[in-house]
Amino acid sequence: MLKEYCRRQIELIDRALDGMLPQAYPPAIYEAMRYSLFAGGKRLRPILLMAAADAAGGDGRKYLHVAGGLEMIHTYSLIHDDLPAMDNDDYRRGKLTNHKVFGDGMAILAGDGLLTAAFETMLAQPGVDPAALVTVVREVAVAAGAAGMVGGQAVDLQAAGREVDGETLRYMHRAKTGALFRAAIRSGAVLAGAPGDKLAALTEYAEQFGLAFQITDDILDVTGDEAKIGKPVGSDEKNCKSTYVSLYSLAGARDMAAAAVSAALASLEGFGSEAAVLREFVNYLLTRDS
Amino acid sequence: MLKEYCRRQIELIDRALDGMLPQAYPPAIYEAMRYSLFAGGKRLRPILLMAAADAAGGDGRKYLHVAGGLEMIHTYSLIHDDLPAMDNDDYRRGKLTNHKVFGDGMAILAGDGLLTAAFETMLAQPGVDPAALVTVVREVAVAAGAAGMVGGQAVDLQAAGREVDGETLRYMHRAKTGALFRAAIRSGAVLAGAPGDKLAALTEYAEQFGLAFQITDDILDVTGDEAKIGKPVGSDEKNCKSTYVSLYSLAGARDMAAAAVSAALASLEGFGSEAAVLREFVNYLLTRDS
Repeated sequence: MLKEYCRRQIELIDRALDGMLPQAYPPAIYEAMRYSLFAGGKRLRPILLMAAADAAGGDGRKYLHVAGGLEMIHTYSLIHDDLPAMDNDDYRRGKLTNHKVFGDGMAILAGDGLLTAAFETMLAQPGVDPAALVTVVREVAVAAGAAGMVGGQAVDLQAAGREVDGETLRYMHRAKTGALFRAAIRSGAVLAGAPGDKLAALTEYAEQFGLAFQITDDILDVTGDEAKIGKPVGSDEKNCKSTYVSLYSLAGARDMAAAAVSAALASLEGFGSEAAVLREFVNYLLTRDS
Repeated sequence: MLKEYCRRQIELIDRALDGMLPQAYPPAIYEAMRYSLFAGGKRLRPILLMAAADAAGGDGRKYLHVAGGLEMIHTYSLIHDDLPAMDNDDYRRGKLTNHKVFGDGMAILAGDGLLTAAFETMLAQPGVDPAALVTVVREVAVAAGAAGMVGGQAVDLQAAGREVDGETLRYMHRAKTGALFRAAIRSGAVLAGAPGDKLAALTEYAEQFGLAFQITDDILDVTGDEAKIGKPVGSDEKNCKSTYVSLYSLAGARDMAAAAVSAALASLEGFGSEAAVLREFVNYLLTRDS
């Protein structure tokens, strides 16, 4: 049921993204931006935004511009992370990375273009009170910037090739991936007009979801199927990256993931069937294979 | 008089920027971002935004957040343009470029962080109707993105080392530098509530200003004083870059710059002394030495 739900949402999001970022002039830069934007992403952040709006009693399909902007930010961060000056990855989701196809310079620009297009797209969101839109897009900017994603990546870059402690690892992941998940879920809730207590509950859900996502990501890097995860198994160990598995063992990481999932479910206790999708989503993390 | 005016405005803008982007955690990324943001920029875009608001009958000092955001966007674009994968420049304004000090990876992240901080900062602008703020920030995003700055840089990257025709050169400059000047001046006018005819006149001024700025920039690359322009004289020719001088000769470029300045002044005919600064500004381009 979650699979079918996601298939429908992805179709909706992909069609919207295609309209928000059509091929245009100058051709080379749009081609490079669209190559990565349509490289088979799972659209997790837009789906979560929309599911959170639904859980708050709204209709998530009304916020496709903000949702699409989040996917553009996620995509730009992957393009820049893959560059030789950063993680130096040749493949992503089983396809050549942006710089392997278009060259380093164009890949930097494609990332810059997607990050900028994200803000343009989010600010074009129709049907929302402008004051609420300003609040939401500003929160997304904080999550994506030096206090969030960019800062986490900077710490990761400095930690490359050496072991870090559990506290640094948690900071890094909270900043690198957790912050944008949090902004996605909170954006959906705020746009749908969630009252304070529901917003607080969904924020707690978002934080536990982000943690469970990251731990299971580290587990997948060890136990996953190369064809399904789209990158070589064991790449973290090869790159001497500290992970939840390297710091806490596979069994320890599995326990931590299960605890985060339980906490996420507990945060939704005040919700009824309108949060069914969010419950399914976080449960799925424990059995994900990609 | 223009010099003294700029000195005061720069002081105001620098103090505001320091408060908008204080040193924070994680230290390395903020240090890299602040290194370039406080590397002695002329703050031309923020000053123009504020002068345009003044010309439209408002008070430019009320819009320091939007003005500061423009400077962050300009700074990010310089950091990324200087990277080895792009123009590969070691010096900027007489100082080592960001990647020469912090490494390529951190410089990419510093640019990403500044671009994101720009939107966060602009959306924190107090005292402005949220609907107007959304309109203005969205226009800045369009100017900075693939249809503007990023697109112009992409065409420039593809043109590296070969001659381009006059039409391509004009497109490249309109996109690379003109678009953000235009957005700066229009933002000031819109924020100050300029009526349609004044907004149209200031838009025409902005386009002629951008053109004159670019032509005189190309002239300076040939005739300038290395100590004042902060980079080697003749670098465009060395890099086989087409410029207004290479395509139209030094005398031809000077005539074109003078014509653009005349057109900019003509566009301000409906304004009184409230546009005195804008008149002085465009006149100064003909005698600039840095």
